[in-house]
Amino acid sequence: MSRFWSPIVETLSPYVPGEQPRVPGLVKLNTNESPFGPSPRAIAAMQAEAGDSLRLYPDPQALALRQALADYHGVKVENVFVGNGSDEVLAHVFAALLKRQRPLRFPDVTYSFYPTYCRLFDIASEIVPLDGKMRVRVADYVAGGPVIVANPNAPTGIALSRKEIARLLRANLDEPVVIDEAYVDFGGETAIPLIADYPNLLVVQTMSKSRGLAGLRVGYGIGDAALIQGLTRVKDSFNSYPLNRIAQAGAAASVADEAYFQKTRAAIIESRQAMVEGLTRLGFDVLPSAANFVFARHAARSGAEIAQALRERAVLVRRFDQPRIADHLRITVGSPDQVERLLAAAEEILQG
Amino acid sequence: MSRFWSPIVETLSPYVPGEQPRVPGLVKLNTNESPFGPSPRAIAAMQAEAGDSLRLYPDPQALALRQALADYHGVKVENVFVGNGSDEVLAHVFAALLKRQRPLRFPDVTYSFYPTYCRLFDIASEIVPLDGKMRVRVADYVAGGPVIVANPNAPTGIALSRKEIARLLRANLDEPVVIDEAYVDFGGETAIPLIADYPNLLVVQTMSKSRGLAGLRVGYGIGDAALIQGLTRVKDSFNSYPLNRIAQAGAAASVADEAYFQKTRAAIIESRQAMVEGLTRLGFDVLPSAANFVFARHAARSGAEIAQALRERAVLVRRFDQPRIADHLRITVGSPDQVERLLAAAEEILQG
Repeated sequence: MSRFWSPIVETLSPYVPGEQPRVPGLVKLNTNESPFGPSPRAIAAMQAEAGDSLRLYPDPQALALRQALADYHGVKVENVFVGNGSDEVLAHVFAALLKRQRPLRFPDVTYSFYPTYCRLFDIASEIVPLDGKMRVRVADYVAGGPVIVANPNAPTGIALSRKEIARLLRANLDEPVVIDEAYVDFGGETAIPLIADYPNLLVVQTMSKSRGLAGLRVGYGIGDAALIQGLTRVKDSFNSYPLNRIAQAGAAASVADEAYFQKTRAAIIESRQAMVEGLTRLGFDVLPSAANFVFARHAARSGAEIAQALRERAVLVRRFDQPRIADHLRITVGSPDQVERLLAAAEEILQG
Repeated sequence: MSRFWSPIVETLSPYVPGEQPRVPGLVKLNTNESPFGPSPRAIAAMQAEAGDSLRLYPDPQALALRQALADYHGVKVENVFVGNGSDEVLAHVFAALLKRQRPLRFPDVTYSFYPTYCRLFDIASEIVPLDGKMRVRVADYVAGGPVIVANPNAPTGIALSRKEIARLLRANLDEPVVIDEAYVDFGGETAIPLIADYPNLLVVQTMSKSRGLAGLRVGYGIGDAALIQGLTRVKDSFNSYPLNRIAQAGAAASVADEAYFQKTRAAIIESRQAMVEGLTRLGFDVLPSAANFVFARHAARSGAEIAQALRERAVLVRRFDQPRIADHLRITVGSPDQVERLLAAAEEILQG
């Protein structure tokens, strides 16, 4: 607290990201990073851009990157908004689209940045509980304010089908509906094809997970051109150039390397299968995951206990100290070797 | 306008950055970029970082970069805040420090992003006219709300001494005073040494100008630890990781290359001297500049006319269609060759 702060600052509840310790040999399964690096083509593009041209500002409209994303997703460039990670895109989405007369609705268990944005932008919210099986029930989102849903949801990993998302949209034609698809590439169905029919739909994606670019900070939103214009007005009132030249070049090159994208995401889906089987064998109850993480609870041991014991064995997972999920662990799907080390450590703990 | 926008969106007045055309052979003197690229050490650091490590998130606290800046400026790491260009730093400054009971004060002629931030964050402002010689008069900022002043001011280029800034601080001990030093390295005196005595002072700097890194988007703020904490609360409510791994690595390496920094900024100051002399010879009235641009008006020709004629000769300068300065041109100090081409084009126009 300082007498020089704007009054709002004291009321904020900043988001706490997963730890980023730099410990050699650590099995880091706490922040849903990819075990694979970026596409070699992306690396080459970034190295080429890391030179004298950095004396010049980036393209404030990021046209080349937006065009690459538009082509990839079968939409037009005016349907694409890009930002400094999907967190920045979401921040602008909250300011530009979700601060309305009626409160914003989202699940009780979801990405914990949503309530943080609500505090920052002074947005009233209405928390809608997941059902008993930790699922988003579309029937719970009828006739109210705007909606934001992560699909697959985080940290549960459970996905709604595109058909269910269409149902959600039909039930909320007068309010913006935002689908946060940070994890969609690992088994979800994207809602992007629905933007043609639903001018109230904005889909948010990220390059941090399925494209191995968490360290580059590139996210994007896709929706009707009027929604993109609203986001752009806010962005241009905040920071003209949110994506540096290297990020624009690397992200566009990543989008162009479909073979690498498909190979690496398939490998992660395969690793997930092995991880789910191993954890189930050890007595974990694992929610059905369409993401690059699983959300699991052990029948006999507390989440805090297992997380701590794993940590002592240099395996880092994430636990949220929140109602309903305090005993769950969110565990990133790592490489086959990391999965093996996780399962070996868990087995040792549970036998002890 | 869209029925899916938050009500505030329509009221915004987005900032319009200088054009970024990609025309070969263009003499681009419109956005105050450096004629020099970044330090070779910064380039090497960025290329080294553009690899597999990008699969991991950046350090959300950017500790290594903040430590490098703290060491460079003789302060502690808790006195340093970093962001995605000084525009993002300023945006957080407006939200975290400048939205208070009393209106924010700034000059009528200054960085035009300030009124844009006021709209975005719903901050009342009080515009204080520059004096007849286009100077900020400290005596005009006594006993009122918070203050933001660019020093050197933009687009005038005129600097206040550190002694005058101390006077400004003494006259406003109960409100935050922000000094935006984007251009300070070209002849201004930084206010950073004053932070020890003035807990209400925040100094903002950027790597875009004097470090040839406009394309990388790195800016920072230096002030009392409590101010930095306030900024960090807002930043962590907006985007955990505003600086990607490559930006953090490149910026830190740039700070470590003092010889390159001194050499390039001295060259720009020398070029400015030649440019001022040439423009004066051609009948321009040039304000005394402590920046990497000059602000000049011709005795006989309108600003719009000269800007257009320069443009036809592939020389791009910036003009602001605003009261008091519509006939001025803001011209970036380029390389000796660019200065020569500018002066030749201007001479041709004025003889015509």
